[in-house]
Amino acid sequence: MLNVKFFLFLLTLILLNVVKCKYVYETKLFQVPLDHFGYQRNETFNIRYLVNEDNWDRGGGPIFFYTGNEGQIETFAQHTGFMWDIAADYRAKLVFAEHRYYGKSMPFGDKSLNKEHIGYLTSSQALADYADLVNFLQGDRMRPRYPVIAFGGSYGGMLSAYFRMKYPHLVTGAIAASAPVHMYPDMVPCEVFHRIVTSSFKIASQKCVDNIKSSWSELRTFLGSQNNSDWIKTKWNLCEPVKNATDVQNLLDYLQTMYETLAMVNYPFQSDFLMPLPAQPVRVVCQYLTDKFNGTQLFEAIGKVIEVYANYNRKPDCVNYTNTNYGNLDASGWDYQACTEMIMPMCTTGKDDMFEPSPWNFTTYAEGCHKKYGVYPRRDDARIQYGGDRIKAASNIVFSNGLLDPWAGGGILNSISSTVTAVVIIDAAHHLDLMPANPNDPEPVKMARNIHRQNIDKWLREFREEQTKRP
Amino acid sequence: MLNVKFFLFLLTLILLNVVKCKYVYETKLFQVPLDHFGYQRNETFNIRYLVNEDNWDRGGGPIFFYTGNEGQIETFAQHTGFMWDIAADYRAKLVFAEHRYYGKSMPFGDKSLNKEHIGYLTSSQALADYADLVNFLQGDRMRPRYPVIAFGGSYGGMLSAYFRMKYPHLVTGAIAASAPVHMYPDMVPCEVFHRIVTSSFKIASQKCVDNIKSSWSELRTFLGSQNNSDWIKTKWNLCEPVKNATDVQNLLDYLQTMYETLAMVNYPFQSDFLMPLPAQPVRVVCQYLTDKFNGTQLFEAIGKVIEVYANYNRKPDCVNYTNTNYGNLDASGWDYQACTEMIMPMCTTGKDDMFEPSPWNFTTYAEGCHKKYGVYPRRDDARIQYGGDRIKAASNIVFSNGLLDPWAGGGILNSISSTVTAVVIIDAAHHLDLMPANPNDPEPVKMARNIHRQNIDKWLREFREEQTKRP
Repeated sequence: MLNVKFFLFLLTLILLNVVKCKYVYETKLFQVPLDHFGYQRNETFNIRYLVNEDNWDRGGGPIFFYTGNEGQIETFAQHTGFMWDIAADYRAKLVFAEHRYYGKSMPFGDKSLNKEHIGYLTSSQALADYADLVNFLQGDRMRPRYPVIAFGGSYGGMLSAYFRMKYPHLVTGAIAASAPVHMYPDMVPCEVFHRIVTSSFKIASQKCVDNIKSSWSELRTFLGSQNNSDWIKTKWNLCEPVKNATDVQNLLDYLQTMYETLAMVNYPFQSDFLMPLPAQPVRVVCQYLTDKFNGTQLFEAIGKVIEVYANYNRKPDCVNYTNTNYGNLDASGWDYQACTEMIMPMCTTGKDDMFEPSPWNFTTYAEGCHKKYGVYPRRDDARIQYGGDRIKAASNIVFSNGLLDPWAGGGILNSISSTVTAVVIIDAAHHLDLMPANPNDPEPVKMARNIHRQNIDKWLREFREEQTKRP
Repeated sequence: MLNVKFFLFLLTLILLNVVKCKYVYETKLFQVPLDHFGYQRNETFNIRYLVNEDNWDRGGGPIFFYTGNEGQIETFAQHTGFMWDIAADYRAKLVFAEHRYYGKSMPFGDKSLNKEHIGYLTSSQALADYADLVNFLQGDRMRPRYPVIAFGGSYGGMLSAYFRMKYPHLVTGAIAASAPVHMYPDMVPCEVFHRIVTSSFKIASQKCVDNIKSSWSELRTFLGSQNNSDWIKTKWNLCEPVKNATDVQNLLDYLQTMYETLAMVNYPFQSDFLMPLPAQPVRVVCQYLTDKFNGTQLFEAIGKVIEVYANYNRKPDCVNYTNTNYGNLDASGWDYQACTEMIMPMCTTGKDDMFEPSPWNFTTYAEGCHKKYGVYPRRDDARIQYGGDRIKAASNIVFSNGLLDPWAGGGILNSISSTVTAVVIIDAAHHLDLMPANPNDPEPVKMARNIHRQNIDKWLREFREEQTKRP
């Protein structure tokens, strides 16, 4: 049995590796200033970008430009199959630009995330990096030959929309998938995210939701007794025992993040986007949570959920529940952004959701940020910079959201004008429309991708019409 | 005679003082972060703004917002009479915001312009200051009651256009008067400014142009002899004698700046905008330069021009030809901006203009900047940030330019779309349309102001329609 398991594990590793090499690109570097908006610091550094020109029409083919988000850029290149799928049709060049302070785009090497260096990690600086890069890719010309379409998912989707909004002269249009541009203070109820997590689980099974909901207090009681610590450590394959109240809280936080993540990446196919997971992971884990449980049965069932979540690729690793890194994304940089400009209030009520009630309070949040990074968040900065929901003057942006995606709660679900439009995808989780076409794709996501193509067609037509009018 | 002169001098001072007090406002302070786009430096400081609410309809009257440029804000408040003239009709609140690092809006007090502090003087930071201020003036609301119209002239006009471009959610429309948004490298010929200076003088008299053109070499020869230094010092009332080649160059530069300035502020009425000058100053000074001169007659005539330029308010001061301060504007801050992001190539050919040929070369320019400030200019930054001439996606901006104004050479003279329009004013110098209505105003400037009002009407209508549509 162990041999079979080991064989399966090897096979999975090989398969994953094949998946990882599916797309081929060149890795390049581009020099940017540390501070685009001031001259007190005049250092420069390199951001990375990945390029594929296999299909490119150098005579005027478009540049499809992924505005990288909070993680190493390879992850986004590998998982934004939509861009790869349509590159040949459009004879497009593909570019995936890495966000400063993530992956290998580090202004101060290993020390970049230190307090004395991290302050230049902001969305505005990243967008200005992308602007310089696009200007360079267009040949630094007054009259560029290559239209640029921005693509992005999640925070990357926010960036692609903001890129078009702030630099429309460089970006002809933007596909902003699952971009929670309304997730800022006072804009949407702070509980909306967890309400959608819960409803995604409810679709799988109401019993699953009930079990998760009752698990919190049962776990607290159970873990309150020191004797049960070893039991949990063994059953859940934890790296560290649950010794004290902090450990209990960390473990419960880990579970909550697990449910949130499963809802986000609830794709109809096996994927390793944030971590390796089976197709329809919410349904898969809810299978274990549909019974009525007695005694430790509920905890055993949750143990199976954890195994799916943490160990689907059969790594022999134990579960490091104190690790705050978020799958393939780099939590340390994002945590800083969330503590400075990207303020996204998150709360749970325990009523409309399956979690323990936990309010959100700006002052408490701000003090936590100050303790951690020595900075106070600028509460309304992102709204003031990017317009919140007052973006009627913008143009050529598609905001797409899947209704299974918790982030859709902060997304734009209604078209704002004829050129800033919303695409709502019933059966889709987090930016499924940007993923590679898959036989298991639901019909609505195929339709969404067609709408994207129609918009891209229109934007490219506009660019070319404009081009012919110029002297 | 001296008593009469002294009396006249006092009278002028009193009159000027009356003019200065014509408009009444409250002076307020508003706190802004030193660095809007990063968190490494978390200092804050106050910018000043001037407010008049005499006519304001607090129920929903617009805010007319002047995006202050390179100088103390009172100068712009006093000279942007158009805003004052129309405030009652629109029941508008007037706000004049001072640009950081000018006037009293100093982040580091007296030390702000020192090398270790000046780096946060950029247009992007200033615009972000204005964005924060507008957000505050609108009551920090998701659904603001007050539409905001931006106004600005010259660099302030660039800022008002850029303000609408980058923050359309805060600014409903912008009147950008005499904004040389095309004056960046490779966008217009570097000689265009001085060609227009020359043609403005040509309108007054061809002979005037010929005399100025021939004066440079004659002056160089004349000043080459040490004996003539005293003569010039006395005749031209110079503070310092012309002792060496550097002094000669400084003096000739002073004269060139004088002719440039006279063309810029060639208004049909007496004004003290940059310095006190008579109505139609180019015509006034050209009166002295229409003869054919012999010997030192030309220099005596130029002496009279200098007297008009430097001493129209009969101040007893001598002419400080080594002073690079540009009238009421603060050259030290602007010089830094011109050395960092606001790169505006300027050259003379001696053919199409009345100046000595002087080429422009980026490398030489950049080295000069580095020597002075320890920074190299970022040559294309302003174009990449603000779009150069690729601003078709923008909306609700009027670019107005007077054809007598040398800066019109870098202005937008053709409408770009139905909502980004150009207003060309035949008989006007530098942003005359923003000046107070005057009986001497030429018809075209009156027409331009009417077009401004029609646009403002339209933008306010749009804002209100949008407002009623919202929940």
